[in-house]
Amino acid sequence: MATQGQVITCKAAVAWEPNKPLVIEEVQVAPPEAGEVRVQILFAALCHTDAYTWSGKDPEGLFPCILGHEAAGIVESVGEGVTDVQPGDHVIPCYQAECKECKICKSGKTNLCGKVRLATGAGVMFSDRKCRFSINGKPLYHFMGTSTFSQYTVVHDVSVAKIDPKAPLEKVCLLGCGVSTGLGAVWNTAKVEPGSIVAVFGLGTVGLAVAEGAKAAGASRVIGIDIDSKKYDIAKNFGVTEFINPKDHEKPIQQIIVDMTDGGVDYSFECIGNVSIMRAALECCHKGWGTSVIVGVAASGQEISTRPFQLVTGRVWKGTAFGGFKSRSQVPWLVDKYMNKEIKVDEYITHNLTLVEINKAFDLLHGGDCLRVVLNMQV
Amino acid sequence: MATQGQVITCKAAVAWEPNKPLVIEEVQVAPPEAGEVRVQILFAALCHTDAYTWSGKDPEGLFPCILGHEAAGIVESVGEGVTDVQPGDHVIPCYQAECKECKICKSGKTNLCGKVRLATGAGVMFSDRKCRFSINGKPLYHFMGTSTFSQYTVVHDVSVAKIDPKAPLEKVCLLGCGVSTGLGAVWNTAKVEPGSIVAVFGLGTVGLAVAEGAKAAGASRVIGIDIDSKKYDIAKNFGVTEFINPKDHEKPIQQIIVDMTDGGVDYSFECIGNVSIMRAALECCHKGWGTSVIVGVAASGQEISTRPFQLVTGRVWKGTAFGGFKSRSQVPWLVDKYMNKEIKVDEYITHNLTLVEINKAFDLLHGGDCLRVVLNMQV
Ligand SMILES: NC(=O)c1ccc[n+]([C@@H]2O[C@H](COP(=O)([O-])OP(=O)(O)OC[C@H]3O[C@@H](n4cnc5c(N)ncnc54)[C@H](O)[C@@H]3O)[C@@H](O)[C@H]2O)c1
Ligand SMILES: NC(=O)c1ccc[n+]([C@@H]2O[C@H](COP(=O)([O-])OP(=O)(O)OC[C@H]3O[C@@H](n4cnc5c(N)ncnc54)[C@H](O)[C@@H]3O)[C@@H](O)[C@H]2O)c1
Ligand SMILES: [Zn+2]
Ligand SMILES: [Zn+2]
Ligand SMILES: [Zn+2]
Ligand SMILES: [Zn+2]
Repeated sequence: MATQGQVITCKAAVAWEPNKPLVIEEVQVAPPEAGEVRVQILFAALCHTDAYTWSGKDPEGLFPCILGHEAAGIVESVGEGVTDVQPGDHVIPCYQAECKECKICKSGKTNLCGKVRLATGAGVMFSDRKCRFSINGKPLYHFMGTSTFSQYTVVHDVSVAKIDPKAPLEKVCLLGCGVSTGLGAVWNTAKVEPGSIVAVFGLGTVGLAVAEGAKAAGASRVIGIDIDSKKYDIAKNFGVTEFINPKDHEKPIQQIIVDMTDGGVDYSFECIGNVSIMRAALECCHKGWGTSVIVGVAASGQEISTRPFQLVTGRVWKGTAFGGFKSRSQVPWLVDKYMNKEIKVDEYITHNLTLVEINKAFDLLHGGDCLRVVLNMQV
Repeated sequence: MATQGQVITCKAAVAWEPNKPLVIEEVQVAPPEAGEVRVQILFAALCHTDAYTWSGKDPEGLFPCILGHEAAGIVESVGEGVTDVQPGDHVIPCYQAECKECKICKSGKTNLCGKVRLATGAGVMFSDRKCRFSINGKPLYHFMGTSTFSQYTVVHDVSVAKIDPKAPLEKVCLLGCGVSTGLGAVWNTAKVEPGSIVAVFGLGTVGLAVAEGAKAAGASRVIGIDIDSKKYDIAKNFGVTEFINPKDHEKPIQQIIVDMTDGGVDYSFECIGNVSIMRAALECCHKGWGTSVIVGVAASGQEISTRPFQLVTGRVWKGTAFGGFKSRSQVPWLVDKYMNKEIKVDEYITHNLTLVEINKAFDLLHGGDCLRVVLNMQV
């Protein structure tokens, strides 16, 4: 390929400073080093984690940077020693790496591979601790090891999943974060069984995917909780059977739920990022076995709390990152499930825009009618 | 039997008021009503829950009452409809009931039967919400449905485990609470696997039983943590392989443990009742799979807290009551294990006294050299 080994100049949305509009710039993307993959991003969606870091509230946020972590594209070129993907492969970049070799990957107990985490946390690449993005020689930090708001990005080979080339990239880009997280929270982290009563707090993309996963797992009741009553109409299509708006009640929401479920739910999921709702989600669980899974990401420095009696009487408190899915092994499997019509994806996409409209896309994301905005990156 | 159907007058230690010495009184013990069992208590041990309620810090404590919940005795008589035990049976009273019929017992997921809980929480019997203890017509409240600091007590039939009559009651009385709780926390609640690294916070009876259970489960390392360094010598006999006194270190104890275990332990157990140690016990767990079990009972109103990130990155927070053992089904099995020399009991008994010395026994319990004091109730 003509570009292989060359610096590519392309468009990207640059976050120069926290809380200032993103700027579409011509950026230079260096060729991939050993163990790296350069990917042409065709479609990228927006997630609240991008908005959170952009807002400046994330103390680990580094600027200037290129945000984005939910996307799909095609491998342009690979660095030395990369064997699992090659130019032309269709891929989904994965912020949660999977090296298949470290103690954590080999444990078989979790998806939280730490191989490149220190580098991606510092906004650089693992091999030389440098950035592959620059503008006129000035480096731009990477974000979550993905930086998908660029027409080309460089990722670690342990952070890219090769998928079915027949899959529509403008849809399956969503499997890079929110939808997979919700499904996995139910299937991998909670392991919901048939007949279970489930509560889902927050009916955004993640919460709806939890509802969908719970329905697929055979839950008998899926109680959706949101402060926006409009969400119930959409949520019904994703498996929510009952709806509660906490604003319609005087009593604490956990009490309402305990009362309507003869003692509490079997599983609850917090899909908002609000620490007081995390507590409510735990406390609405049935004593003896109810399990609560934290999916939402709270603002830095915030803490969860409860009386220890809640745990001593048998409730279990857990959390999930990327729904417990092993990214390189299982994202392709999720894509196949979508192709077989076993999971929804299209239904989460409420808006389609282009890269240059990214600031408008973030405005939409904060509105109540938006689930996911997908950006066409190449126009 | 001569006493059957009669009021029995016998000695008991009465807690007239919070935080005042117990008084040995002649009390009247009414015959058992339907579904009740009157037990002659031969040996009773002291546990910190007795001391906690006695201290007045337990807002649910009711006075005057008869404390005690770790004991063994012989059935004197039974009320109408009681078929599972009969006069002469050797038994251990169980503060955690097991009715085998309610939704919770039938779930097969937990030991937390609630059949008589509302009554025992109110210090009365289930059938008529009255007390079976009195002094000259003035009722004395029951405690935890057991009230074993009396030569005779009345318990619900769902709260009494029939055991091997050959078992020495002066030893197996300990299986009514602390030792069983520690073993069960490991075997039932955490389900520790061979090769696991375990941390035990607090090396009293409960913590030592956790260590013993972990060793039996094949743990490769059992790290004991206590502010009293004397505990290490005893703890070695119960399976503790390494010891840390947090007072010997500047860094937080969770950091010390993470550093010495290549990222954290597989399982941790809080056996103290201190909410900040509960946090440390969670945070010393390995990301991705480390599980922390709260065994200690914190003072009323206190709360546990942590950053939700601890759970999102795969740690699990649980708790246990009576170690998850189903009391009537499994206490007899624990007694058999003791008789087969598969679990220790004698080693936890550091002092033997008599009922009339009960105040001295509580003083001993608060000293560092004491694990369990067993009272001979009939002299
Ligand atoms: N753990 C992970 O790996 C992971 C991955 C992706 C996203 N997340 C997190 O999941 C959360 C949800 O993401 P999303 O994209 O679905 O967000 P979203 O903003 O689209 O959805 C949140 C929903 O919660 C509702 N809500 C807000 N406050 C509420 C309250 N107090 N009570 C009830 N409902 C309330 C909102 O009305 C909205 O419908 C975010 O915190 C995100 O950062 C976590
Ligand atoms: N969950 C249940 O069903 C259940 C059953 C029985 C007992 N318990 C509880 O278990 C706890 C332990 O009971 P026990 O009889 O073993 O008590 P204990 O007092 O004999 O043992 C506690 C140990 O913790 C140590 N300790 C105190 N503060 C410490 C600190 N800050 N750091 C490290 N070590 C510290 C003490 O030196 C002591 O060795 C109590 O809270 C008791 O109420 C719970
Ligand atoms: Zn995301
Ligand atoms: Zn790995
Ligand atoms: Zn006890
Ligand atoms: Zn029951």
